[in-house]
Amino acid sequence: MGMRCKRCGEPPVIEIRRHRAAFCAGCFVHHCHEQVRRTVDKLRMFGPDERVLVAVSGGKDSLMVWDVLLDLGYHAEGVYLGLGIGEYSDESGAYARDFAEKRGAALHEVPVSDTVGAGIPVAAKAMKRPPCSVCGLSKRHLLNRAALERGFGVLATGHNLDDEAAVLFGNVLTWKMDYLARQRPVLPATDGFARRVKPLVRLGERETAAYCIVRGIDYQVEECPMAAGNRHLRYKEALNSIEEHSPGTKAHFYLQFLEQLLPRLDDVAEDDKADLRECVRCGSPTTGELCAFCRLSDRVSASTDPAA
Amino acid sequence: MGMRCKRCGEPPVIEIRRHRAAFCAGCFVHHCHEQVRRTVDKLRMFGPDERVLVAVSGGKDSLMVWDVLLDLGYHAEGVYLGLGIGEYSDESGAYARDFAEKRGAALHEVPVSDTVGAGIPVAAKAMKRPPCSVCGLSKRHLLNRAALERGFGVLATGHNLDDEAAVLFGNVLTWKMDYLARQRPVLPATDGFARRVKPLVRLGERETAAYCIVRGIDYQVEECPMAAGNRHLRYKEALNSIEEHSPGTKAHFYLQFLEQLLPRLDDVAEDDKADLRECVRCGSPTTGELCAFCRLSDRVSASTDPAA
Repeated sequence: MGMRCKRCGEPPVIEIRRHRAAFCAGCFVHHCHEQVRRTVDKLRMFGPDERVLVAVSGGKDSLMVWDVLLDLGYHAEGVYLGLGIGEYSDESGAYARDFAEKRGAALHEVPVSDTVGAGIPVAAKAMKRPPCSVCGLSKRHLLNRAALERGFGVLATGHNLDDEAAVLFGNVLTWKMDYLARQRPVLPATDGFARRVKPLVRLGERETAAYCIVRGIDYQVEECPMAAGNRHLRYKEALNSIEEHSPGTKAHFYLQFLEQLLPRLDDVAEDDKADLRECVRCGSPTTGELCAFCRLSDRVSASTDPAA
Repeated sequence: MGMRCKRCGEPPVIEIRRHRAAFCAGCFVHHCHEQVRRTVDKLRMFGPDERVLVAVSGGKDSLMVWDVLLDLGYHAEGVYLGLGIGEYSDESGAYARDFAEKRGAALHEVPVSDTVGAGIPVAAKAMKRPPCSVCGLSKRHLLNRAALERGFGVLATGHNLDDEAAVLFGNVLTWKMDYLARQRPVLPATDGFARRVKPLVRLGERETAAYCIVRGIDYQVEECPMAAGNRHLRYKEALNSIEEHSPGTKAHFYLQFLEQLLPRLDDVAEDDKADLRECVRCGSPTTGELCAFCRLSDRVSASTDPAA
């Protein structure tokens, strides 16, 4: 006697310890669909008639969220940012295009260099800032712009439970209240921002990898070479060492944060919005004249201009 | 050329990475005294004329806090609870008595079995509860009672920065708001409770060990055998793995919690106090008829009574 699929009783292919359950391949896909469907409905991420733009990196999480939303019958198109990180970017783009083609779904491609003037490695050097910081700023801006320009009210990302728990751990270690207040699975649309949603927050990265394998989705396995050894990965490791002994700790940590702490931080989120006005160049919300992204573009262009 | 004592320039014996500083033996003792003095004053733990009862286990932290308070000129007596944990308790008592004798300070001894009817291992078995839980309940009650009965308004414990950071990590992982609201370095006196203070919250356990070694204080090195492998130790390890890469993370985590989050939890702490009344037997604050400690004593006595 071994474990049995929780739903149909057949031999299982994956065990999920925090749920004390195991699933066969077919029922695991059903389980994932249900988790996403319930998350989208319960947190009112979007309705059946809304057009959703999915931020696609070519990795397991973003391809899974796109796949599930299509399966659930949503109108979901993809947007892929060309980050210019050498072979890594070449490969990630190929995975994204391959998936779009197989599913017959539209993929919008946006090279970062078109607006920033260079890819992430060159831009980070020009700015003398860590690449993950420049990359995050560029993604936030360009994904949002891609959604608004193409008439999407909703931007979906593939952040999973492990990502969110690690980010939460980092935010808790420093108690940056404004960061904590903004760490929500749904960030409502405001002037200049499309609604941002994270439909995979109830699924761990072991599950998103298993989903892609079971569904035959080819994805980029390697991590971004620029992120190696960063804090985010150490936070994941620290949480994993605890999860190993107490399955469910990570999910409880993140989901109870949403229930218990976030409601106490509404005033922080409000304070944050108070001072925003429009960037004089691109119209994005900003606290200064030019938004951080336009300042980035200016400085990168100036430093890489051959005439300078 | 190596590092130099931050204060006098002599060759150092200890480096404290989060302070980017090193100290010779004498200046390290001075540094520890200053840290405690500032903590006591800044957080208004007690004034120069208050009598302080120090909870002494025989370990490095409690002997250090007693030693420092005596050096700083406070009237500090010790209280030692006999937990009845075999050889471990025999040894810990010897260290406490030895220190009291060398410093010519008064030590009050309270065997847990006098009121509970048995030591911690037997009581935990009788209650079918984890020993750390029964021990914590007994300590809270008996230390408080020892302070009140002997006319001390203040009870000091040796909780250090590593202890507090690990407890905070555990409380954050579950987001138990009432536990978080109560995790303060000073818990004010209320009806039935002496003020409880933690003067070592700015010192890590590497520093409390070094202090005892430099000062020639013999302390019990081994951990309690009943606590081996508990969650608290895993939380410490997880935080240490992060501290290793980013010195100062632990201190920032705990100290910013006090600054940023605790002020937002005042209403939780208030709600908690609302329902308290006096235990009908011992007068301790409780939400029921009998306090949890008196219920513990009753059940342990019933199960160990040879006449039963």
